[in-house]
Amino acid sequence: MKAEFSITVRTYECDSYGHVNNAVYLHYLEQARYEFLKAIGFDYDAALAAGYGVYIARVEIDYKRPAFNGDRLTIISGPVKKGAVSGVIAQEIRRGEELVAGAKVTWAFVDRNGAPVRIPKEFDNPGLEPNP
Amino acid sequence: MKAEFSITVRTYECDSYGHVNNAVYLHYLEQARYEFLKAIGFDYDAALAAGYGVYIARVEIDYKRPAFNGDRLTIISGPVKKGAVSGVIAQEIRRGEELVAGAKVTWAFVDRNGAPVRIPKEFDNPGLEPNP
Amino acid sequence: MKAEFSITVRTYECDSYGHVNNAVYLHYLEQARYEFLKAIGFDYDAALAAGYGVYIARVEIDYKRPAFNGDRLTIISGPVKKGAVSGVIAQEIRRGEELVAGAKVTWAFVDRNGAPVRIPKEFDNPGLEPNP
Amino acid sequence: MKAEFSITVRTYECDSYGHVNNAVYLHYLEQARYEFLKAIGFDYDAALAAGYGVYIARVEIDYKRPAFNGDRLTIISGPVKKGAVSGVIAQEIRRGEELVAGAKVTWAFVDRNGAPVRIPKEFDNPGLEPNP
Repeated sequence: MKAEFSITVRTYECDSYGHVNNAVYLHYLEQARYEFLKAIGFDYDAALAAGYGVYIARVEIDYKRPAFNGDRLTIISGPVKKGAVSGVIAQEIRRGEELVAGAKVTWAFVDRNGAPVRIPKEFDNPGLEPNP
Repeated sequence: MKAEFSITVRTYECDSYGHVNNAVYLHYLEQARYEFLKAIGFDYDAALAAGYGVYIARVEIDYKRPAFNGDRLTIISGPVKKGAVSGVIAQEIRRGEELVAGAKVTWAFVDRNGAPVRIPKEFDNPGLEPNP
Repeated sequence: MKAEFSITVRTYECDSYGHVNNAVYLHYLEQARYEFLKAIGFDYDAALAAGYGVYIARVEIDYKRPAFNGDRLTIISGPVKKGAVSGVIAQEIRRGEELVAGAKVTWAFVDRNGAPVRIPKEFDNPGLEPNP
Repeated sequence: MKAEFSITVRTYECDSYGHVNNAVYLHYLEQARYEFLKAIGFDYDAALAAGYGVYIARVEIDYKRPAFNGDRLTIISGPVKKGAVSGVIAQEIRRGEELVAGAKVTWAFVDRNGAPVRIPKEFDNPGLEPNP
């Protein structure tokens, strides 16, 4: 399952080169993953309340085209890998048919000390699997 | 040659988990590369004035440890690859001896249309080479 | 005439106190003024192309209530004062019936050197007047 | 007593107009107030641990001159008003002798529900008074 999340680029997200600053893409990706977790029914607040967290361990991002103020962008997020402790979500930022950026984000389930732990059954949502 | 750039984490750079937001690291890396270019004597303003730009094509970042408000971080930047058109800079974000994050950033020299071009001699700074 | 612009608070806009960082409200207000100018048909790009700018000279903002991740906020913007060179726009950030923040923003029309100038007729949009 | 805090403008803090974005000034002011509290020996972490907070109720800021990438800015912060529950801190952002922006920030001491409360004796630091 893939989740889609759309945003319109805001004026202040553009830097002095006139296009969206590279770091802002990570904000878009973060928000899109949050929406992805909501879409698959992963209860993030319950996980936090139970003392767990989802730690982002690695981001690979390829910047393909600049984005500009007012652009309508869609971020498509879906799982491509899943283990007992961690997984990988692939994300694409698109402007219509054009690929603006592509990313792979590795996450790990962690306990309250930030140490990776097996995902407890109650949080092991099938939507985190590439082929559920 | 490697360049070092130090910053102290500011309150507003921390997110609701109490540590530096993942996207903020890309800001640190961007600023550190800017300082690296200054340190090797690359004249970025002259390159811009001549109609060129340095486009960031890819970022790989491994988040190793969270960083917190008030942390003193040092970002060490140095070239690890260099071609006729593009190159790779490795960057480490350290808190004393600890590695907070490591990154590899691929850049490309571009013309005013954003198309990759051979780096003109006057901008082909030896400091961009891993082994000058 | 008043313009309305709605946003949903994003995760990364919240700081370590768990609510929207004070500076982020200024981003919301900036974006909402941009939408206000579009709504009244003020051609900002043409003004820029003609060498003019709209400089924000003063912001007064009263923070009434904290805002949280996921909150749907509406920013209502309308002129309350207008002179030959400058004016004031009042803005309210609302969450349903609740006032989250209220602001008054003083703008000035400036030339390419940043010096205040009388607004040229072609840019003196009646929508900038409180009582057009 | 006034506290001084200096920063150098970073590349990503500049927006598409090539100068520091208006919202970023609020980040600078926030960080400078944090340094001011440290300088007067106000124990903010202890206040938080005791269930209190310092809520920013109002900001007035006058933007006098644009600031640019690489500018060295000094923010000077000092109290100008103090009551039983709240107070006002004046802040100036300077570039050498030039005033870049001036602000007045109203704060209120709040309990864990965000309701204003008399500052308890142990947190009623004399450095919060204009004339201690």
